[in-house]
Amino acid sequence: MILQVANNGLLRTMNYFCPMAENSTTNVSELGEFGLIKHLTKNVELHNASTLLGIGDDAAVLDNLAKQTVVSTDMLVEGVHFDLMYQPLKHLGYKAVVVNLSDIYAMNAEPTQITFSLAISSRFTIEALEELYEGVMLACERYKVDLIGGDTTSSQSGLVLSVTAIGEVNESGYISRKGAKENDLICVSGDLGAAYMGLLLMQREKNVFLENPEIQPNLAGHEYIMERILKPEARRDIINWLNEHKIHPTSMIDISDGLSSELFHITDQSGVGCRVYEEKLPVENATKLMAQEMNLASSTAALNGGEDYELLFTIPQADFDKITASDEISVIGHITKAEDGCKMVSTSGSEYDLEAQGWNALKK
Amino acid sequence: MILQVANNGLLRTMNYFCPMAENSTTNVSELGEFGLIKHLTKNVELHNASTLLGIGDDAAVLDNLAKQTVVSTDMLVEGVHFDLMYQPLKHLGYKAVVVNLSDIYAMNAEPTQITFSLAISSRFTIEALEELYEGVMLACERYKVDLIGGDTTSSQSGLVLSVTAIGEVNESGYISRKGAKENDLICVSGDLGAAYMGLLLMQREKNVFLENPEIQPNLAGHEYIMERILKPEARRDIINWLNEHKIHPTSMIDISDGLSSELFHITDQSGVGCRVYEEKLPVENATKLMAQEMNLASSTAALNGGEDYELLFTIPQADFDKITASDEISVIGHITKAEDGCKMVSTSGSEYDLEAQGWNALKK
Repeated sequence: MILQVANNGLLRTMNYFCPMAENSTTNVSELGEFGLIKHLTKNVELHNASTLLGIGDDAAVLDNLAKQTVVSTDMLVEGVHFDLMYQPLKHLGYKAVVVNLSDIYAMNAEPTQITFSLAISSRFTIEALEELYEGVMLACERYKVDLIGGDTTSSQSGLVLSVTAIGEVNESGYISRKGAKENDLICVSGDLGAAYMGLLLMQREKNVFLENPEIQPNLAGHEYIMERILKPEARRDIINWLNEHKIHPTSMIDISDGLSSELFHITDQSGVGCRVYEEKLPVENATKLMAQEMNLASSTAALNGGEDYELLFTIPQADFDKITASDEISVIGHITKAEDGCKMVSTSGSEYDLEAQGWNALKK
Repeated sequence: MILQVANNGLLRTMNYFCPMAENSTTNVSELGEFGLIKHLTKNVELHNASTLLGIGDDAAVLDNLAKQTVVSTDMLVEGVHFDLMYQPLKHLGYKAVVVNLSDIYAMNAEPTQITFSLAISSRFTIEALEELYEGVMLACERYKVDLIGGDTTSSQSGLVLSVTAIGEVNESGYISRKGAKENDLICVSGDLGAAYMGLLLMQREKNVFLENPEIQPNLAGHEYIMERILKPEARRDIINWLNEHKIHPTSMIDISDGLSSELFHITDQSGVGCRVYEEKLPVENATKLMAQEMNLASSTAALNGGEDYELLFTIPQADFDKITASDEISVIGHITKAEDGCKMVSTSGSEYDLEAQGWNALKK
């Protein structure tokens, strides 16, 4: 089953519900570990002067050229973070890189290198892994980061990916979660909740398909929310825009577990409270429509959906005029005293406590 | 079943064949992901001035203080790299860190930071994870590296660990696999094959135990080979000794997949051949005895066993006198022209081609 997805011309063809290419025939055991790594990484190009030595030794060697180094890592586990029934491997490779770059941007840093490790079971063919690596390389090319190492090993069951991203930042230029101050404005980039609605759509269509494999999934018109879950982007543009406009946020985090959960990280670490307004939450029309179709409040998707990979940050009130120049940034509330807690003002005007529900895979 | 293992006083009690503490009762879901991470990392201490910001943000921040940065990563998968029937979790945590530090030392660098990620299934209790982290912390303390981040997520089946180690090295001081030259001497630290014999012993005793759970494992007197597989050390001492004695190897690698496999990495990348002598291979008596008991040539364990985490390196002939001052380093052969291939001279004087058999988990 093949579907065309409008996707900035990058990844147009997606094989839904059959991610393994049908002409995949080459078993990984034919190459062995070292052969496989050589094969998959033969086209790796280096973009950064700071990469002195890349893949192929005990370790990579970097030269930070007097900047500070930023490091982040994430693990993606089959059946927990992705479902190969609807997640094409190329998109998965792309996403595994991007979600890590998002963490680096959230420090106000520039990503420069990644390591990419994977554990694979014997059901994966070389062709399937080539697809996965194509996505990795595409993300590296697009964000100009260097793939400098990794580990490829076998797994007894599912696919596990682990990415470590490294970035650089001018001395003391990084932005942590700790600096939010009372009266600061709370800002968010892009829009929220779309990835979660895309996920619910995919899960619904998967269930339909499992019940009746003759039925084509009904995905037309839902490209935006699908792209948000399957192939997210990191907000390099927002970081660049803020730097160009000389806006230095007092705290920043990327939204991976849901807006609520990230607000709690900032308020906890900064020792403050917050008040956000439901009507200010940026939610795309496509997200609202799908939420309506599924009898869900779109603000629930925005607050607790997760996987948006937008940036959440706080700025001094004095920067309000500057920030309004961006169509891509919404002011959704402000920072309060710690004793005021974390509050949401609903569209109807009532106030309630936010809950850090998020995507807590370990809490059931 | 409790056994005392002489282990430099560090890890004296090992629960063989029942790694989960019997009074483990606290389910991970009681804390959730963020609570779990906070709980497990509450005692993290930072040792390095280069660590500006550790756990608890989108990324860690490092300052390399004008040195170059070295990065290595490894994944350890349950059922592939370890068996929790006989691998105590504390030792596993220790080992997961040490095998990565070994890669950093093999670059002639000093490890400074690690990230530690894990995917766990619901059968793991908080107490079990505390044990795992105790081992991680112990390795960090012993090697003075800082735990600066990681990811904790759920898995549908086994335990997967992923560690990224970061180190620093003076400008152009790193040693790659590429520099071996004809007539260089091939050196190896410590002794080889013990970890492999320890593994075979554990597997044998596990089978006995599975057939008859009443039978206590017969491990007394085998502490050395068990320690080599369950709780290896990285050869920081060798790196320090070489630097003190102003010996700068022309190439270096750590022995994780077996001596043969590592020799091929060096000769491939340096464009040379090699000749090693069976009688020169450093093998401990305990290793020889177990090999004899199992009808295996001890040189097979030394060449293809793997997991020794010793250092293999080449030095100019001029440094021969200097190197003999160390009891911990053996000269096992020399580098030849590429067209001479990779040869082994047996104790009986016959010469044969080395095979890069190694621990190739993906090649069956």
